[in-house]
Amino acid sequence: MTPQIEVVFQPHGKRAEFPPGVTVMEAAQALGVDISSLCGGKGKCGKCKVRVLGGDGTVSEPSDKELKHLSEEEIRDGFRLACTTRLGASTVIHVPLRSRIGRQRLQTGGLEIPVKLDPLVKKYRVTMPPPHLRDSRADEDRLLASLTEQHGLPELGIDFDVYRSLPNIVREANWDATAVVWKDRIIALEAGDTSDSCFGLAVDVGTTKLAGFLIDLKRGEVVAVAARMNPQIPFGEDVMSRVSHIMNGGWDALEKLQDAVVSGVNEIIVECCGEADARPEEIYELNFVGNTVMQLLLLGVWPRHVVSSPYTPAIRRGVDVKAATLGLRANPGANAHHLPVIGGFVGADNVAMVLASGILESDEMIMAIDVGTNTEIDLGNRDLVMVDSCASGPAFEGMHIKFGMRATTGSIEKIGIDPETFDVYYRTIGDAPPIGICGSGIVDAPAELLKSGLIMPRGNFVTEMTERTDRLRKGPDGWEFVIAWGKETDIGTDVVVTLRDIREIQKAKAAIHTGADLLMQRMEIDEADISKLVVAGAFGNYIDPENARIIGMYPEIPLERIEFAGNLAGTGARMTLMNREMREHAEMISSRVRYHELAADEGFQKEYIDSLNFPHSDLSKYPETVELLRRYGQKI
Amino acid sequence: MTPQIEVVFQPHGKRAEFPPGVTVMEAAQALGVDISSLCGGKGKCGKCKVRVLGGDGTVSEPSDKELKHLSEEEIRDGFRLACTTRLGASTVIHVPLRSRIGRQRLQTGGLEIPVKLDPLVKKYRVTMPPPHLRDSRADEDRLLASLTEQHGLPELGIDFDVYRSLPNIVREANWDATAVVWKDRIIALEAGDTSDSCFGLAVDVGTTKLAGFLIDLKRGEVVAVAARMNPQIPFGEDVMSRVSHIMNGGWDALEKLQDAVVSGVNEIIVECCGEADARPEEIYELNFVGNTVMQLLLLGVWPRHVVSSPYTPAIRRGVDVKAATLGLRANPGANAHHLPVIGGFVGADNVAMVLASGILESDEMIMAIDVGTNTEIDLGNRDLVMVDSCASGPAFEGMHIKFGMRATTGSIEKIGIDPETFDVYYRTIGDAPPIGICGSGIVDAPAELLKSGLIMPRGNFVTEMTERTDRLRKGPDGWEFVIAWGKETDIGTDVVVTLRDIREIQKAKAAIHTGADLLMQRMEIDEADISKLVVAGAFGNYIDPENARIIGMYPEIPLERIEFAGNLAGTGARMTLMNREMREHAEMISSRVRYHELAADEGFQKEYIDSLNFPHSDLSKYPETVELLRRYGQKI
Repeated sequence: MTPQIEVVFQPHGKRAEFPPGVTVMEAAQALGVDISSLCGGKGKCGKCKVRVLGGDGTVSEPSDKELKHLSEEEIRDGFRLACTTRLGASTVIHVPLRSRIGRQRLQTGGLEIPVKLDPLVKKYRVTMPPPHLRDSRADEDRLLASLTEQHGLPELGIDFDVYRSLPNIVREANWDATAVVWKDRIIALEAGDTSDSCFGLAVDVGTTKLAGFLIDLKRGEVVAVAARMNPQIPFGEDVMSRVSHIMNGGWDALEKLQDAVVSGVNEIIVECCGEADARPEEIYELNFVGNTVMQLLLLGVWPRHVVSSPYTPAIRRGVDVKAATLGLRANPGANAHHLPVIGGFVGADNVAMVLASGILESDEMIMAIDVGTNTEIDLGNRDLVMVDSCASGPAFEGMHIKFGMRATTGSIEKIGIDPETFDVYYRTIGDAPPIGICGSGIVDAPAELLKSGLIMPRGNFVTEMTERTDRLRKGPDGWEFVIAWGKETDIGTDVVVTLRDIREIQKAKAAIHTGADLLMQRMEIDEADISKLVVAGAFGNYIDPENARIIGMYPEIPLERIEFAGNLAGTGARMTLMNREMREHAEMISSRVRYHELAADEGFQKEYIDSLNFPHSDLSKYPETVELLRRYGQKI
Repeated sequence: MTPQIEVVFQPHGKRAEFPPGVTVMEAAQALGVDISSLCGGKGKCGKCKVRVLGGDGTVSEPSDKELKHLSEEEIRDGFRLACTTRLGASTVIHVPLRSRIGRQRLQTGGLEIPVKLDPLVKKYRVTMPPPHLRDSRADEDRLLASLTEQHGLPELGIDFDVYRSLPNIVREANWDATAVVWKDRIIALEAGDTSDSCFGLAVDVGTTKLAGFLIDLKRGEVVAVAARMNPQIPFGEDVMSRVSHIMNGGWDALEKLQDAVVSGVNEIIVECCGEADARPEEIYELNFVGNTVMQLLLLGVWPRHVVSSPYTPAIRRGVDVKAATLGLRANPGANAHHLPVIGGFVGADNVAMVLASGILESDEMIMAIDVGTNTEIDLGNRDLVMVDSCASGPAFEGMHIKFGMRATTGSIEKIGIDPETFDVYYRTIGDAPPIGICGSGIVDAPAELLKSGLIMPRGNFVTEMTERTDRLRKGPDGWEFVIAWGKETDIGTDVVVTLRDIREIQKAKAAIHTGADLLMQRMEIDEADISKLVVAGAFGNYIDPENARIIGMYPEIPLERIEFAGNLAGTGARMTLMNREMREHAEMISSRVRYHELAADEGFQKEYIDSLNFPHSDLSKYPETVELLRRYGQKI
């Protein structure tokens, strides 16, 4: 009965004692440590890779099943499958990011990068000596002098609207007030001491989704998060169709789309305030990121020219405007800031991602990919960062995929295929019966089919395999593979992946790889020079990094150098709200990151075609993947 | 027939040849030189004093009549009466300001002080290279870079509203546009080359009158002038009654008064634009001066506290706000600037006067008096300037005076009394039959009565004089003196000056003198230290400086050191519109001029009572005036 060995899970830091012979998975489940498992601990899906540190000689030997899923290098580094590995002595288990379930499915999420709390907007309580005949200084001078004496502030500007009630507020409050200072200006003056309540809102304006983060700027904490579909969707699902709508409807149409997004943000404000017990009037700054079209529609700027060649943005630098001018619900003096952009298809969201990923402060070379309908790729270090943007399409968002869907309850988010039996293991969000496949599952499907020999590197099905599995078959849309049988699902029909789906995925991943590869070519570096690959985007946290690499979505960079960061644009927006230097940093990024126009790159066409294959026509670019596929028995 | 002598009038510079024996007045009239004359050339009114330079020994000897009007010092300096002085040889005649008629009765007038043309708002025509795939810079960057290349401008800010149509304007204009730059921001962008049309408006917002000056900022010329009664007058004739009205009516009442003055300024804009063939949209900046209450009512700031002890202004520094925010008709991006103020009763009009009078640049001591319902007095030099404000009341504006009126056609603006016959000579504006007495006449009346021995230094009539003139009599309001008989007037009744009028004048002039005297005391200087006295105010140009001094309106400073400058506040407003450094200078004045609160000065009461006498209880302060009165035969 007495437990004899201690098992510690990292980076969670959870630990407990267990009887010898416990499997890693059993220990993990007992401690509530999240380790991915699709096949239910049968050693078949290979999703539960962990690294076993210590316990030398007392850990069970790798089984045949394990050896199928692990490369020699992985075994050398201590990687094992959690479900089949038994421990005989105290050990430390490192659970890599890719093997974690990621239960906190906050679609709005993203890395929290600690920044010094030093927002552009701050509150200062100030008490003033009442005037008398021998001290009849102006109310303005009295306020400014007291701010200087009590807070060391330089002589500040004062917003015009603050002047209007200045004489009344200071007297009603008996010369005890709180000044709200934005940059070098007083934007609001409040009676009494209100210095405890100072909020800001960071907003990621996506073409599809709005995500808002209410931040307590006094304490530097995110106190509420809310998301909404972008209310502009009825005017067009993508940026092109929204701009077309405006071209047809004129300035009235632009105003309608502006109103739509503003009303969406206002709903987020109300929801966040409700959650955090704050009032909209206590929000003194709002920071926005979004692509260049979202930027123009939010600001009400004519958007036509950014979507037609040569794709010139209207505004590059960050824009400050009174939130009230845009119709946003916040303090009347609140500032709305839209972060700067880089180029026609590289918006403030990318600036925020570069900021959050720290490329421009890095000595080493970093690549960052923000996967979306348009995918931006940044590559460089403190000396030079280049960015390009590729039209990767909406396949990874579930669109143009037969059973594709957004990541919600019931969507298949992970897929494993047993390379011998071709049984399919999957996990759905919320463990509900499947109703479709979301982004990370859409990445898994072709990778697993490839590993199992069910498709060829060119993407077509190996039709002879119909002899070995009835999951491969000809359906109404041509060849298809059954991921979930109708009886397992909530929709009554088989959930399949079709050849057409695979073609869509090939186009999408080829576009992204081409963008990445051409940047590397233009900067004259190769994979070995890249010390970190950051993958961002709404579903970024949930992609299987190895499967993404198997299909050639990005260059073959060692898995330990790949980081998934989720919604980094939102992270950057929060950083610029919390620290004023980050704002300058964003301007610096906007002016320094060099935009590479793929449409003007002569190498584009060839590289795109070569990138359509899984993982690539030039296999010398993917040696590890080739080795892995060969280990699975594929002739490549 | 051959003219033999040349007569030159200075400072007019007019000259012609005349037969010897010509009187100065005859020569002046022939040349259209304006020399004051009330008695029609009879040597009785003494208003036509000129200085005769040269012609030694050939100029007629001073007559007895002349000697009555001239002091020994004046005769020594060459002063003579123009009407009785005959010339025997070529001479130069200097016509002092006080003897000029000033026919250009522009009530809005004021000195034109030349400043370097360097306005805060300027236009820059800019052509940009059209974008293409290898130069897809943002429209913003393209514009800014071209402005830097073509005009050496630093990186400018851009007004939010300019962004909205930026992409359209540059393309419609085929990349040829005009940027309107205010300070360090682009406030408007216009298609094509509009750089020739750039206007600004300087506005003096008086309690009673609005005066606007449209200035061509490209050429530095005043191109139109317009004036209106302040449309706030129906809400109260003076500042106190307007503030009371607002106290009763609340923010709605404040808004009505703000709308009133704004509509008045808008009418001025339309009139000026019509006159100058300009459009309101071509006005890019408006500069306002006014007292502190007018400032707050224009800006819509709660005005109560500035009119009750301890009289604290709300705003001291200059205020910039979009003209559109105030409802002013101008370019949508135009800036409205209100000049800074100094203290509760010392407004931007005084800052403008200090600016225009150059006190703070002067090595020597200058006193400047801006006569109005409130009279501000500034005294100092580059080291220190002090200002105080005294409630001189509206007597000099014609109010509380039985036949007082504003300076319009038919108002008596100059009065002379023959000290022997007590005949009265007067001049009316427009030479129309008299209907009342305006400010300069109101100054003349007690001075002339005093010189003629009709009133005592304490202001009461010398009733024994009824024996020598039937103009002195007892009327319905007590003792009075007839200035114009009913048959001469347009109103059918005698125009008189009453004892009560004289009491009002005494109070007004005592307040002004007290303000001036106490400033001198506090700065520990006396009359001899003052190198220049500048008298400003709407009627300033038309006051007889000697008569004003005889009644003790200001300290006894030699007449040649007294300058009349008219509406110097308007002059200052124009200067700050035309030259950006003047704006900084105004801020410097606002912060450096030290406000002296008369209400807190212990010497006030005594000095005010002593100042009620004509010219003063302490005659040692007015030695020249005493000598003059004694020369006229007065026992003083």
